[in-house]
Amino acid sequence: MKYYYINGKIIEVRHANIHVTDLAFLRGYGIFDFFKILSGKPLFIDKHINRFINSGKILGIELSLSITQLKEQIHKLLNANKSSNASVQMFLTGGYSIDGFTPTNPNFIILENKLSVNDPLLYLNGINLIKLKYQREMPEAKTTNYSNAIKMIKKMKQKNALDILYYNDKFITETARSNFFIIDHKDVIYTSIDNVLKGITRQKIIQLAKNYYNIKEKNITIEDLKKAKEAFITSTTKGIMPVVNVENDIIGKGVPGVITIHLMQLFKKFIKDYLRNR
Amino acid sequence: MKYYYINGKIIEVRHANIHVTDLAFLRGYGIFDFFKILSGKPLFIDKHINRFINSGKILGIELSLSITQLKEQIHKLLNANKSSNASVQMFLTGGYSIDGFTPTNPNFIILENKLSVNDPLLYLNGINLIKLKYQREMPEAKTTNYSNAIKMIKKMKQKNALDILYYNDKFITETARSNFFIIDHKDVIYTSIDNVLKGITRQKIIQLAKNYYNIKEKNITIEDLKKAKEAFITSTTKGIMPVVNVENDIIGKGVPGVITIHLMQLFKKFIKDYLRNR
Repeated sequence: MKYYYINGKIIEVRHANIHVTDLAFLRGYGIFDFFKILSGKPLFIDKHINRFINSGKILGIELSLSITQLKEQIHKLLNANKSSNASVQMFLTGGYSIDGFTPTNPNFIILENKLSVNDPLLYLNGINLIKLKYQREMPEAKTTNYSNAIKMIKKMKQKNALDILYYNDKFITETARSNFFIIDHKDVIYTSIDNVLKGITRQKIIQLAKNYYNIKEKNITIEDLKKAKEAFITSTTKGIMPVVNVENDIIGKGVPGVITIHLMQLFKKFIKDYLRNR
Repeated sequence: MKYYYINGKIIEVRHANIHVTDLAFLRGYGIFDFFKILSGKPLFIDKHINRFINSGKILGIELSLSITQLKEQIHKLLNANKSSNASVQMFLTGGYSIDGFTPTNPNFIILENKLSVNDPLLYLNGINLIKLKYQREMPEAKTTNYSNAIKMIKKMKQKNALDILYYNDKFITETARSNFFIIDHKDVIYTSIDNVLKGITRQKIIQLAKNYYNIKEKNITIEDLKKAKEAFITSTTKGIMPVVNVENDIIGKGVPGVITIHLMQLFKKFIKDYLRNR
């Protein structure tokens, strides 16, 4: 892409700078959200905007724009870049801070990047996860705090894993960048409910699956996972992706399960219809 | 100050920008440290540099400069600004990331700012703390993750508090920006040992106090605090600051205690001698 957006201005990517006194930079005090553009249409943009504003509320960062104004600003960038497929990230930070600690006027930044296409083999063969005992500090907010995930990149590479499954004292919660689902031997689908980011794709999958399966939001234990027949993750960038291995524990037969594949097909069709009807 | 430092270059403060793809900005993946300049002399600079490098090791961010080179770079900025009293912050981040997640060449940034002088009344009257159940994710590293502290600024103002006392499931650990000490009725001084950032001032106080008092590194409980006769915090910016109130629980007689005042005098003299001998 040629342009990013910073506080009302369309700026060439190479000049898209922020001052070093920004509180997301100095103090990790920032939130973000992102959505896809497919065939020129932003996917579930209202839901992403709502979550973005809600993340801000949790951290105490308030966007001074109304939702209508926010959308106008997003479209300003989309119009400048003229790309029909893209990934759009919105950031809201504590602003440029004089004392390096106290928030000021928030900085609002939008990045539009090329849509990264996931290797089809990942969907065909399923992926590996590694595990980490870790609970995100503000689970319901999409904050910029990813240090613990980035620390694990080396281990992910070693284990040929694509994501990190987080668990706390009691439950498996989510992965570093996705929501987590399992399917038991009675074909019941479960996804964690507490201490997780409520994903937009997660919500869509719950709605779609309801027509065919028994699906429940419920906290998942390590034992549940060990007995699971199928597992998958969901996220904006990945859609549904089958999980076949969690740190050397093989899930089911070690290949994507039939229900997961069915849900992948349902979701694909849902997106197609969504795009056709906009 | 007139200048900041970014990746080898001295840059006017108003132009001190980083690109928005920096991983400290996008993902909170960064560490920092800071030290004071007094009478033109950097205080305990070697210890701060060591801790800075160690924080980087914990996060997996490696500075490409040797310690000698690092010091040369710091002095480049100090020479440009020519200020005899200042506060210097070093930052090391995951670098400009193409995919917004994977670290690249770290960005090394130094900010030199006016030394903020604390109100003498805070030392004379002591300060209030509020409490928060919170354990920093990487306690031994000085990461940029301060969201939970910044969220509490409003409550601090309401309660006329200057800092936030963190406690976890078991112990009182540290405050948001300082180490924490208590003194019991037998005049024994305690400071938390586990899950805290090992402060440079903390270490100095332990050394100085040893000549006069029984001082122990030991985990502090809520009960210990309730029975404490005196309490204080230590940090680079604050030195020793007496604590007289923790969220409505009055410490001792509600005024700075005699041992705390003695330690403040010892530390003041120590700094004076330190500066004279450099």
